[in-house]
Amino acid sequence: MTEKTFAFVVYPGLTTLDLVGPLQVLSGYAAGDPSVRVVVVGETRETIGTDSPLQIAPSHTFAEVPDPSWVLVPGGGGPTLRAMADGTLIGYLSRAAAGAELMTSVCTGSLLLGEAGLLEGREATTHWMFRDLLRAFGATPVARRWVEDGPVITAAGVSAGIDLALHLVDRLAGPDVARGVQFGIEYDPQPPHGPLDWDKAPREGLQSLREHALRDGLADAPELRKKLLAYA
Amino acid sequence: MTEKTFAFVVYPGLTTLDLVGPLQVLSGYAAGDPSVRVVVVGETRETIGTDSPLQIAPSHTFAEVPDPSWVLVPGGGGPTLRAMADGTLIGYLSRAAAGAELMTSVCTGSLLLGEAGLLEGREATTHWMFRDLLRAFGATPVARRWVEDGPVITAAGVSAGIDLALHLVDRLAGPDVARGVQFGIEYDPQPPHGPLDWDKAPREGLQSLREHALRDGLADAPELRKKLLAYA
Repeated sequence: MTEKTFAFVVYPGLTTLDLVGPLQVLSGYAAGDPSVRVVVVGETRETIGTDSPLQIAPSHTFAEVPDPSWVLVPGGGGPTLRAMADGTLIGYLSRAAAGAELMTSVCTGSLLLGEAGLLEGREATTHWMFRDLLRAFGATPVARRWVEDGPVITAAGVSAGIDLALHLVDRLAGPDVARGVQFGIEYDPQPPHGPLDWDKAPREGLQSLREHALRDGLADAPELRKKLLAYA
Repeated sequence: MTEKTFAFVVYPGLTTLDLVGPLQVLSGYAAGDPSVRVVVVGETRETIGTDSPLQIAPSHTFAEVPDPSWVLVPGGGGPTLRAMADGTLIGYLSRAAAGAELMTSVCTGSLLLGEAGLLEGREATTHWMFRDLLRAFGATPVARRWVEDGPVITAAGVSAGIDLALHLVDRLAGPDVARGVQFGIEYDPQPPHGPLDWDKAPREGLQSLREHALRDGLADAPELRKKLLAYA
């Protein structure tokens, strides 16, 4: 018997791993817990593009899942900024939040939660390159892997969604089950050059990527652009 | 000018993160290197299911990419074992290998490389639960995050594809570029309960999952089943 529905929200151009990291963890967990249903929701069930050559299609439409218990929205570059002006998407997040137990995001997905009015007065995080922009939504940016503030949990960039999702499994079913899922996806990370050394972050190189994302993504949304650029 | 084509192979029921982890890394890299083209190839361009509620569609067919430079094949559970009996898929891997510079796999994707005859006499790895089955293909199983033996690189389970892919970027463009991509995907892993403690691996619990995968995936392929079970 389904007691909780976990809706992963998709929109054109999203960053594929933002979505699939946590989706793998939660759908792996749900395979062993019939009370949890995992769905992928989009405006329609049509196939859409991502930031990679992979095309994806949701399992359900927004209209079919009006009252999810938990929601996760992935981020991306220019297309995610563009999605800030997508009234259907932002409306879904905003309406879902009214009844949901948890609203979560990965990477710049938090900008979409912000635009839906969910970050006002909260601590939040996002991809490290975009962190200061969270102030445009009344949020206090925090440099952590994920930030939990009441019913809103925001994760850092891209791969951070895997850690967030293991934390969600822990919350659902405790640490032993979360460790079991971690063994299932053999999540024993060994980056070839070790963990990131933040003193060596390529801030200037990636700055141009961010400017491009803001310019390209918000070309048709001058008000949003102004709002974000005030904090850039 | 495209000099290298990197083909990510898809088939029904694959484990989504096996594919998307390395796809995110390599397509992120390729965005800045016009000499590298990343494609997702399948038997047709039709949308197919995965092990999660997400549906996916490739960008190209096998026929459209007959001579990839590099190939990556993801793994999964029962559906991956079933794919061992898919002559079109195995034929594509086998023909691609004749001209490719590198053949790579994530998780039980190595069983598909094995069935294509590419692991004979080589060291290889796969998801930890399936590692001993590699002997069925004349390979020597190795417990490492990824194993490079000549033109064949096999990675461990699911999330190991991210580490493999960063190693591939390193190989293509050196450690500084690989670190740049790592910053791009903010790959600074912080599993909530720390790294895996292999002394506590849930071998018995997952044994039944493996048996189910073998039974379900190879129900229609008794010869393959016999070949694998001899090493299980």
